Amino acid sequence: MHTILSSATTTVRIGDDQPFAIIGERINPTGRKIFQQQLRAGDLSRVEIDVKEQVAGGAMLLDVNMGTPLADEAELMRQAVPLIQGLTDLPLVIDSSIIEVLDAGLAVYQGKALVNSVTAEDERMDAILPIVKKYGAAVIGLPNDEEEIPEDPARRLELVRKLIGTATGKYKIPVEDIVIDPLAMPVGADTLHPSRTIETIALIKAEFGVNMTLGASNVSFGMPDRHTIASAFLPIAISAGLTSAIMDARSPQIVRAVKAADLVLNRDEWGANWISAHRAAQKAAAEAQAQGTT
Amino acid sequence: MHTILSSATTTVRIGDDQPFAIIGERINPTGRKIFQQQLRAGDLSRVEIDVKEQVAGGAMLLDVNMGTPLADEAELMRQAVPLIQGLTDLPLVIDSSIIEVLDAGLAVYQGKALVNSVTAEDERMDAILPIVKKYGAAVIGLPNDEEEIPEDPARRLELVRKLIGTATGKYKIPVEDIVIDPLAMPVGADTLHPSRTIETIALIKAEFGVNMTLGASNVSFGMPDRHTIASAFLPIAISAGLTSAIMDARSPQIVRAVKAADLVLNRDEWGANWISAHRAAQKAAAEAQAQGTT
Repeated sequence: MHTILSSATTTVRIGDDQPFAIIGERINPTGRKIFQQQLRAGDLSRVEIDVKEQVAGGAMLLDVNMGTPLADEAELMRQAVPLIQGLTDLPLVIDSSIIEVLDAGLAVYQGKALVNSVTAEDERMDAILPIVKKYGAAVIGLPNDEEEIPEDPARRLELVRKLIGTATGKYKIPVEDIVIDPLAMPVGADTLHPSRTIETIALIKAEFGVNMTLGASNVSFGMPDRHTIASAFLPIAISAGLTSAIMDARSPQIVRAVKAADLVLNRDEWGANWISAHRAAQKAAAEAQAQGTT
Repeated sequence: MHTILSSATTTVRIGDDQPFAIIGERINPTGRKIFQQQLRAGDLSRVEIDVKEQVAGGAMLLDVNMGTPLADEAELMRQAVPLIQGLTDLPLVIDSSIIEVLDAGLAVYQGKALVNSVTAEDERMDAILPIVKKYGAAVIGLPNDEEEIPEDPARRLELVRKLIGTATGKYKIPVEDIVIDPLAMPVGADTLHPSRTIETIALIKAEFGVNMTLGASNVSFGMPDRHTIASAFLPIAISAGLTSAIMDARSPQIVRAVKAADLVLNRDEWGANWISAHRAAQKAAAEAQAQGTT
C-alpha cells in the first residue's frame, strides 16, 4: 500500500517496498527557547537553517509545527508553509493540535500534505477528518481516545480499527491516506515500552497493511547516547512494518541506520543507494580536505 | 532455553531473556597474513593483544580458530587454549573444520566449551557429535548438508530438524546445548540474503526455541561502511530470535548497537547496563583527558 504525498513539483511514496520515509522533526519550537522567542516576534528566519540542515541530512519530508505559547499559531503556520515551500521541494507534514492551525496550513499548501494528527476520539475525528477530506490530504492517526493512551497493543489495535473505520466509512478518506502512529514512549520510563510499540506495529501490519510513522526521538527520551538507541530501535521497527518516522534527519548516525535497514531488508536494489551514498560522502570528504576546510 | 558455557571460573548463559551474547571473532588467522606467519613459526604472542582488545570491547566469549595453511593446527590449538585461558576467564568457542583439532582443543579446555561447528551432513555429525558428547560441550549446528547450502528458509529449517533430531536422539546431547547458526550470507551478493536469514531465525525460534548464533561480519562482506550494516542487521536479527553472534567485539559501534537492542527489547532491566556503560565511558574519557592522552 502506498501513501503518496507531494509538493507542487515533487512526489514521495511511502510503502513497505519503498526506502524508509525520513520525516524531519526539527521545525518545531518545542524545547527551543530562542526559536520560540523568534516566532513570538514573528521572525521565521531560523526556519531556513532548519530546512537546509534537514535536506542535507537526508529528510524526504519535513514536519512543520508552529506551536508556541502566546503566539498566533495559525498565522505563523499560514506564513511558514509558503516560506518553506519556497525553500524546498519536499512535501510537508502540517503538525498541530489545533484544528484552525491545520486548516490554515492546508489552505496555503501546494500539493498533497500529511496532517499530524488525529486521535481516535470522536470529537477530534469529527473536527479534523472533514478538513483532511476537504483538502485531499493524508492524515496520521493515533490510537488513543478520551479514556487513555493504552499500553496494551491489542487495545491500540482496537482504536486503530475505530479510526480507520470512521475515516474510510464516515469520511470516505482512502485507507492509503491513513498513516497510523503505533505510539512510541520512552524506554527510560518503562523498558517494555519499545516492545509494545513493535508488537503494535506487527498487529497493524497484519490486519490493515497501512503505512505507519512514529516520533522516533520519544523512545530514547531521558537516556544517554540517544542516537544509538534510535539507530537500533528503528531497524527493528522497520522490520516489523514501520514505513516512516518523524526523526532527527540531521543525525548522520540515525539516517545511516535507516539506510542500512533499507539495505538488509531488501528495499535498496543492488545496494545502489548504499554504495552511492558512500561514494558521495567520500567525494565530499576529499573535496573538503582539498579545500583545507577540515 | 539457556545454553550454559563456562571457563574454570566463569559461567555465561545464552538465552532470549539474557543480554545478547557477544562472541569475539578476532582470534582467527583467516585473512591475517602476519598472524599466519607467526602461527606457522609457532609464535602465539599476538593472541594476547587479541584477547585484551576483545575483552575491553565487551566480548562475553571468545572464538578460537587456528586454521593456518602449512601449520599443525591441532598442535596450535593445544597450545592456544591454555594460553588464552590463562589470559581471560571468558568461556571459549573451539573453532575448526578439522575433527582432530576440535578434539585437541576440547581435551585441554577447562570448563564447558562451545564447538564451532557441525553441519547436517551424516558423516560430519557422526564424527563430531560423539566428541561434543564425550567432553560435555555445546555445539553450533549449521543447516547445510552434502548437497547444498540452501537459500530457502524452509529448507534450512528441515536441516535444523535433522540436526537437532540426530544430536538429541542418536547422541543424547541436550537440546539446550545445541546452538543453531541460521546462515548469514553477504548482502552484496544478493540483497535478499539478510531477509532469508531473518526468516530462518523466526522459523527456528517458533519450532525449537533454541539459541542461535551467526557470523555477523558475513552480512556486510564487500560493502562499504560495514559496521553500520552490522549495527542495523543485528538488532533486527535479535528481535527475530538471534541470541548470540560471532562478531567484531572491538567495534564500539557494533557492540553499542547490540547493547541498545538489549535495552529496547527489554533485556536490560531499568536500563542499568546501558546507563552504567555510558558512565564508564564518560569516566574513561575524563581520565584520558586529565592524563593528556587524548
